[in-house]
Formats: sequence, structure tokens, C-alpha cells
Amino acid sequence: MTAPAINAERLQQRLEAFARIGATPAGGVNRQALSAEDRAARRLLTELAQARGFSVFQDPIANLFIRRGGHDDSRPPLLIGSHLDSQPTGGRYDGALGTLAAFEALEALQDAGLTSEAPIEVVAWTNEEGSRFAPGVMGSMAFAGAADPATWQSLTGSDGASFAHELAATLAALPEAAPRSLGMPVSGYIELHIEQGPSLEKEGLAVGVVTGVQGTRWLKVTISGEAGHAGTTPLPYRRDPMVAAVGILHQLQASVMPSDADARLTVGRIATIPGSVNAIPKAVSFSLDIRHPSASRLAAIEAEVRAICRDQCERQGCSAEIATAFDMPPGTFAPAMIDIIETAADRLFLSSKKMVSGAFHDALFLSKVAPTAMIFVPCRDGISHNEAEYVEPASVRDGARLLLEATIVAAKELP
Amino acid sequence: MTAPAINAERLQQRLEAFARIGATPAGGVNRQALSAEDRAARRLLTELAQARGFSVFQDPIANLFIRRGGHDDSRPPLLIGSHLDSQPTGGRYDGALGTLAAFEALEALQDAGLTSEAPIEVVAWTNEEGSRFAPGVMGSMAFAGAADPATWQSLTGSDGASFAHELAATLAALPEAAPRSLGMPVSGYIELHIEQGPSLEKEGLAVGVVTGVQGTRWLKVTISGEAGHAGTTPLPYRRDPMVAAVGILHQLQASVMPSDADARLTVGRIATIPGSVNAIPKAVSFSLDIRHPSASRLAAIEAEVRAICRDQCERQGCSAEIATAFDMPPGTFAPAMIDIIETAADRLFLSSKKMVSGAFHDALFLSKVAPTAMIFVPCRDGISHNEAEYVEPASVRDGARLLLEATIVAAKELP
Repeated sequence: MTAPAINAERLQQRLEAFARIGATPAGGVNRQALSAEDRAARRLLTELAQARGFSVFQDPIANLFIRRGGHDDSRPPLLIGSHLDSQPTGGRYDGALGTLAAFEALEALQDAGLTSEAPIEVVAWTNEEGSRFAPGVMGSMAFAGAADPATWQSLTGSDGASFAHELAATLAALPEAAPRSLGMPVSGYIELHIEQGPSLEKEGLAVGVVTGVQGTRWLKVTISGEAGHAGTTPLPYRRDPMVAAVGILHQLQASVMPSDADARLTVGRIATIPGSVNAIPKAVSFSLDIRHPSASRLAAIEAEVRAICRDQCERQGCSAEIATAFDMPPGTFAPAMIDIIETAADRLFLSSKKMVSGAFHDALFLSKVAPTAMIFVPCRDGISHNEAEYVEPASVRDGARLLLEATIVAAKELP
Repeated sequence: MTAPAINAERLQQRLEAFARIGATPAGGVNRQALSAEDRAARRLLTELAQARGFSVFQDPIANLFIRRGGHDDSRPPLLIGSHLDSQPTGGRYDGALGTLAAFEALEALQDAGLTSEAPIEVVAWTNEEGSRFAPGVMGSMAFAGAADPATWQSLTGSDGASFAHELAATLAALPEAAPRSLGMPVSGYIELHIEQGPSLEKEGLAVGVVTGVQGTRWLKVTISGEAGHAGTTPLPYRRDPMVAAVGILHQLQASVMPSDADARLTVGRIATIPGSVNAIPKAVSFSLDIRHPSASRLAAIEAEVRAICRDQCERQGCSAEIATAFDMPPGTFAPAMIDIIETAADRLFLSSKKMVSGAFHDALFLSKVAPTAMIFVPCRDGISHNEAEYVEPASVRDGARLLLEATIVAAKELP
């Protein structure tokens, strides 16, 4: 028996093989959930598993599981994995890296003749992206019991396809996968993923130990004032919603992020009504994307938004309407699993930092039902959801090594 | 011979008669330039003129002139008037008031048996609004030699109509109007118009003595930064064009208008690219409508805009592109004519103030070729270019009385 080791070249070739499924001319991937391309990727992974003698299962929402038994098969399995679906103009690493590195970990264990304590299962969750069928993170949400898949049966995709039809076709395309019911006890979950942001690269760190997922709240703010002629309305007679909006945003931009390094505030959309160059607008509306790892801070930021809107609108003789368009509470990962990953990174001499994920991941829902944590690796310029997404081979290797190391420990230590 | 006096009831009935030509269900007027409705209004005015024995002329751009001779017909005529065309959902007073009050002044002189020193001509300028065929103020611009109508012949209207065809049809529809060549010496020009802003009403003044027209400059500012994920990009790594844009607008809104009561700064349009709620935008663009009666102040404000854009963009790691989309220099009216109007207002016990027009008017181009000034009357809530436009009958009467009084003096005193 030798020490198990990642075969970095094999993993790189696998990433390339999967990148050819749904490859776009610009070098990215279009492999949206439950599409023919998604099915082809599931088939390839299943064939690789069967060649290794691993068992393959799928549940009613088409989450795909590849199981390698442990010394004690009565223990709930440790899950490792991510997703195989992509954005319509997505990259080669988002999801695929975590799924294929997990499969590489299983192979590395087998190559070394090592049997883990608990069984280990590689999982590819269904429809993480949500670009073809909304919402995203469907597979993990259903697995964790946070949503009933029955409510999605009547969905229509962005391409007009029926969700029910595409789900059934995807399940039927893998008859060799044994059916399994939805949800089961698991001893833990580890997900390797690209950061999808610039921090690790900018700080020159090999990996991130992810301690949770930020909460996200989307507000739509509409400021109403009084329309007027740009030339004929002097300042004292203006009730200009654009002045109120700028005052609000200026105050928020000077306060929320500068005073709290964990907070995020983004204005992605803004528009005026009627939108004439020479008219004081009647109304201005803008979006606020607010994120924070702490639910109470998120609530405090929303309260600050509301107070600033009230104050600035009062000054300008305007009124504000604030609607919540989306609200995802923060997720906190398990200290035990975070510790396993951090210790493993130190043992492998991988430079790391603890960090909170700014994006959603399947791990968010798994954390509700099992000790969960994530590993991030840097991606070039922080670019993701983009055909230009790129991860250095050294980062692919580092991430996979850390995943393997943490997997061995977690499969042994976790009950 | 009795003292000439405005017949307020007759003028009100005329306003109603003209409001029926192109009347909209919401109580406004759709009588766009060179349309069938515009021709009907020209016909009605011509018939009223012929019934009075006044001469009617039209020039090649279809400016319509109604002449009443003076004691000295060798003197260049004094012009009084405005326009008969409207916005597609325009009001009953914008243009019509000035044209019909001028005609009322001619009738009042005739009713009183009074002959002016110089001849007086009522004028209805072609296409002031510019809504069907751009640009606006065509008739007065061509009359003043500031544009060559030949350049407009190939224009297509917002309704697909040919400008050349519609102009020819309009000229042909009034065979009784004697043709006249474009441009001629005039001794002065007075235009009565609604304010199209709230100042007079808010200040409880009967009339405004207009000393000039603000210059207008439209800038399109585009701030480019770096797109990023709203959740995964911490503050130090953001180059957010929205933060730069808000910084720029906040500084401009705190400076330009508050420090200069004659300045106007309006942001009518703003948009982000790509416009996703959860993405830091790649770029933000907004319009700036800047107005000032002084050309040098207008230039100074643009310089301030450019300096602030540079500074704020530097702070955020962004870049700014500033394009001039429109540039109309200010117009200054003649002190002699301003004085005639102000003195007449005092004589009539009409409360007044000197003011600068925030909107364009035909008077802007007439001021380049003859002593010119304008009279404003209040309109309800400052609303114009809107079917809800309304002027109190008392204001109609006051404006017409002042126009008559000033006309008599100007036709006597001006060379």
C-alpha cells in the first residue's frame, strides 16, 4: 500500500474531456442543466465509474452518486463533489473542477489500495446554475429537504423545454444508475470550487478554506419625485428623484462596505422614468444587492438603507418604495469540517486563508443536513460565468490534493 | 378714435376654436408641424385675417405673415407672434397663445381705428416643436439665415412622411397667401408665450419680462470600470463605475445649481451595462443637461464636469468618456425691447420680473437679426408639452394686454 496521491495529469485530461462536452467556439462550455450535453457528461462520468467498479446511483431529481465502499459500510457516506451543469456561456471549471477532483480522489484511494473508514460518494448535483430552469441549486435543495421537486414539474426552460420532460429524459438516459430515493443521512460534505472572485489570486494564496456562504438580499428601490422641464425649473421648485437617489447611493457607498470588510453592496441596475435627456425624471429605480455572512448585519444594513432613503427623500420632497426581490439567509459551515480542511492545508504546506463565499453553492443546502465546508482555488482575474474562466494547472492540483487529504480525514473522523 | 383694448372674450373663444383643430381626447392638442391639422389652423388664421382685410404672405419655409400697414410703410415691419404647431400630446397654449394674442392685438388696433407708425405683422413660424420633423425652430432659424432649408428637404418625419412633400402641400394649401422670399429687414420682434415652468405661478407674478434664452449643452458621460461578481468581489478589488458615477453626480448636484441660481443641471437618463442585479457593472452612462444664460459660465460648468469626472474616476480606477450631444449657445435679448416691455407692464400695473427662458423659442433666432424680447405668462403647475397644460383666462388677458401695449410703443419708437 502506497500513500494515495492525486494524478494531476489525469485530472487535467479529464477536465479537458469534459470541456469538450458542450464546448463553445470561444473556449467555454454550454452544458446547461438536463440538456443533451448535461446527459453526455453524466454518461462519461458513469462510464469512468463503472470502469473502476464503483457503484452508480441517481435519485428522483437526477442527482448522480458514485460510491466507493469503506471499512464500515453501515456508516453514512461522506459526500464530495459539485455539479456538471454550466451557464450558457460558462467556463470549464465552475462545477466540473469540484466533481472531477472528487472523482480523482476516489481513484487515488483505489490506486493506492486504501479503503476509507466510511464509504465515500462522489456527487454531481442537478441544476446548480439555474440558467435554463430557475431556481438554481435544485438538486442540493431537494436533497436537503428544503424544497419539494413536485413544485418544479410544470417549469418551462429558457429554451422553451419542459422541466418534467427533460428530467425524465435525463433519468432514462442512465439506466445503469440504480434508482435511489431522495435524501439520506450523510456524514459530511466537502466541495471544491473555483473562488469566482479575485481575493486568492490577488493575495497570492493557494487555497481558501470556506467557512460559510454570505446571505444575499436584493432590494428594488423606487424614488418618486416630480417630473419637470430641465430648463425651466429652478432648484427651489425641483423635487428631483435623481438627486435623492444619488444622495442615498453616495451615503450607502461611503458607509456600508468601507465600515465593514465582510459587507458587499452593489448597484447593478438603475433607470429613470421617462428617461428624457431634457426632463427631470418622475421616478428613479435602482437595485441593491446586499451581502453579509451575518444575518443580523444583513438586517442592520437593510435598516440603514431604509433610514437613509427616508432621510434623503424627505430632503428632496420625494418618496421611496423599497421592495425585497430576493432573500437568501447566510449559511455557516461546520467548525469540525473547516478545521479538517485547514489542518490538511497546513499539512500540505498550502498557503490558505479562511473566507466566506460570496456566491451560492450546493454546499449551502448540504450544510443544513451535515457537517459541510468548501475549498476554493483561485481563478484568473476572478472571472467566472464567462468563457474566459481559467484555473492554473497548479491550482487544480493543489485543490485536488487538499480535497483528497481532507476526504481521508473526514471519512475517518466524522461519525 | 378710442384707446385700443384687448377683447379678452374674443381671444378666449379663438383659443378654443384653435384647440379644436387636432384636439385629443384628453383635452390637449396634436397639431404637429406641416400636418393636415397644422394646415387647418393656418387656414383658419388666414380666413380671420382676410375677414379683417389684412394681407397674408408665406415664405418658402411656410412661415405665415399677416400684415397690417402703418403710417410709414417704408419702415420695416414690427413682427409679433409665435407658432401654431404642437407636440403630439401637446397643450392648447404653447405657441397658439402667442400667435392668437398677436392677431388680437392687430384686431384691437383696427377696432380702435388706430394706425401704428411702422407696419405690424403677425407671424406663425413653421415647425417650432421639432417633434415630427427635427430640428425644431425651423422657420425662425431659416428666416434669420441661421440654417439653409435645402438641407432639410430629404428629412423623414416620425410618422414616415417626407418633409419636402409636406412642406409643398402646406404651401399649396394656402394659395391666397402671397409668396414672399425668405428673410427681410424687421424693426423688432415680440413673442408672448407661456412660461413652461413654475416660477411666475409660485411667485404670484402676472407676467415675466424675458431677457434672453439660456444656453443648453447636453453631455453624455460614460464611465468604464471593471465588471465583477457582486458577491465575490471585496471593496479593495472593485473598480466600480457606479461608485464613480454617484461620486461625480453627488459633487455636481452639490455644486452647480446651489452655487449659481441661473444654472440648471439635470440628469434625465442613466443606465448600466450589463444591467444585472448581481453584477458590478462594466460601465455606467448618464446624460447631463446643463443650461445657463451666460456662454462663459456654461463653458466653466462643462470644465467643472470634466475635472470632477477625472478626479472621481481616478479614485475608483475607472475612466470617463464625455461626448457633447447638443450645444445651443445662449441668446440675449435687446435692452431696448426689454425696456419697452417692462415699462409697459408697469404702466398696466402688471406685477412682473425679469427672467431668462429655460426653453428654446423662435425669439432666440429673431434676436440675431432684430431687437427682440419675450413676454411670459404663468401656466398651471409649470406644466407644458402635456395635454394638461392650462393658463388662467386672467393670464391670457394680461399677456395679451401687455403685448398690445408693447407693440404700440415698439412700432412707434423702434427705427
